[in-house]
Amino acid sequence: MSLQLTILGCHSATPRVNAFPTSQYLEINNQHFLIDCGEGTQRQMRKYKVGFSKIDHIFISHLHGDHFYGLVGLLSTYGILSREKEMHIYGPKGIKNATLQMLKVSESHAKFNMIFHELSSKESELIFEDDKVSVRTIPLNHRVYTNGYLFTEKEKARKLHMDNISNYVEIDRADYLNIKAGKDVILPTGEIVPNSELTISPKKALSYAFCSDTSYKPDIIPIIKNVNLLYHEATFLADREDLAKKTKHSTSKQAAQIAKDAEVGQLVVGHYSGRYKDISLFQKEAKEIFENTELAEPGKVFKV
Amino acid sequence: MSLQLTILGCHSATPRVNAFPTSQYLEINNQHFLIDCGEGTQRQMRKYKVGFSKIDHIFISHLHGDHFYGLVGLLSTYGILSREKEMHIYGPKGIKNATLQMLKVSESHAKFNMIFHELSSKESELIFEDDKVSVRTIPLNHRVYTNGYLFTEKEKARKLHMDNISNYVEIDRADYLNIKAGKDVILPTGEIVPNSELTISPKKALSYAFCSDTSYKPDIIPIIKNVNLLYHEATFLADREDLAKKTKHSTSKQAAQIAKDAEVGQLVVGHYSGRYKDISLFQKEAKEIFENTELAEPGKVFKV
Repeated sequence: MSLQLTILGCHSATPRVNAFPTSQYLEINNQHFLIDCGEGTQRQMRKYKVGFSKIDHIFISHLHGDHFYGLVGLLSTYGILSREKEMHIYGPKGIKNATLQMLKVSESHAKFNMIFHELSSKESELIFEDDKVSVRTIPLNHRVYTNGYLFTEKEKARKLHMDNISNYVEIDRADYLNIKAGKDVILPTGEIVPNSELTISPKKALSYAFCSDTSYKPDIIPIIKNVNLLYHEATFLADREDLAKKTKHSTSKQAAQIAKDAEVGQLVVGHYSGRYKDISLFQKEAKEIFENTELAEPGKVFKV
Repeated sequence: MSLQLTILGCHSATPRVNAFPTSQYLEINNQHFLIDCGEGTQRQMRKYKVGFSKIDHIFISHLHGDHFYGLVGLLSTYGILSREKEMHIYGPKGIKNATLQMLKVSESHAKFNMIFHELSSKESELIFEDDKVSVRTIPLNHRVYTNGYLFTEKEKARKLHMDNISNYVEIDRADYLNIKAGKDVILPTGEIVPNSELTISPKKALSYAFCSDTSYKPDIIPIIKNVNLLYHEATFLADREDLAKKTKHSTSKQAAQIAKDAEVGQLVVGHYSGRYKDISLFQKEAKEIFENTELAEPGKVFKV
């Protein structure tokens, strides 16, 4: 089990020389996901050596430009790179038409299929699942329809504890499947051997929750409870809670409160407003409530 | 009269860390124009200190992503910056719908009017004119409908040569308008005083031609004849003329031939393919045909 998050961009909308809009690259249990795709994301992917061909799934939180305007350029580039594998794109209703019309007017003739999964539910729903990972939406509260995403590794099967099993001549190879599935064994004598004696627990499944953009929304806590890593937006500091409320963003203090109440392993904050020159203040403010807080910065890698 | 061109981006489509797609900022006779707007242009504008509010006219050559995918983000930013002045956008038919649909899906509520001037003519046409500058299209030959743009300063009126005029007591203030307009003066004696004696020539009107993307197209020469500054794309070197022909691009040699035949003041080449690591080869190749050739590079300024 492994989880590694690379920040490609982590600033809010207005363009600045050393600011990059939201985008993240997540490697989880050998799956590779792109999360949000602000303008310039494809250049950031090159800069931080993200393998373009590894990504088959792109998750867009909402359709504001600073989370989405890099998508059409990236898809166009996949066309230039002669991609053939299908690409799955998850995002709010409307993403498909706007993207395809832009590609059409550019006469971008991609050979690969783009499969859009348009979201409109206000409840958390399972939107992707394979044998390695599942992805659920985290309904957020922003000025437009917005989802965060919860990425969770699949639990691996229990492993046989062969040393212990060999103590029981009565246990046959034919029993192994049941033992792996967690069942106890009843010996011919009627003695019960508990599964915990016969198996080794697999490594704990890891999880990552991405929450941007949103106002303070404590009802996401049950969904993200105990995740190993939480990214939560922090556009403002607590001194501008009024502005956070008005624009449906969060303060760093609020992000930390969510992390604390959800008992997560680590918090990463980002989406800093351009009004703050010293982003270390975001970390300082959050740490007062939730100690294990880190700052998102372009190129920074978080490994669990 | 003044002409200053700032290169914001000058590379071809595939993303690279230190490559930026086409965009240029032109200051001509106190007018301020943006030419092409590849992804990331707004960040390059910040980097090279282009005043966002100065620009009221954006010219898009064609709708390939590397010349156009930065437009929607820039317009969205103008909305965030509370722009109120109208913005004129010139480009191929289709630009309006694709742009507006993308802005609509993002719920970008701009207060300013966007006036799209959609182009479809295959002949050179006058598309903008005020008392300072005129702009004509330069029909190019690329894989999609493409125009270059010719920017020409308006000739200023002739100035009165007051020292010489004062030699003629017969000339009255009432004659000045005719003299400025270039007319000779007939004295009561019948003597003709030539206008050239009574006026000073204004500074020569300057002109800039932007030609990207295009295959070698010598029929643009009459349109761009004698311009002070010519930007002509050079995607390939002469060793890959076959590829230039196939993809409807030009070689540096071909760009230089156009510059020579059009007898321009200076040539700037750009739009280098990513296959060439050493772009100085583009200059070397062009100089063999047209000596006054410079390389486009991000942030480079050309002053006439």
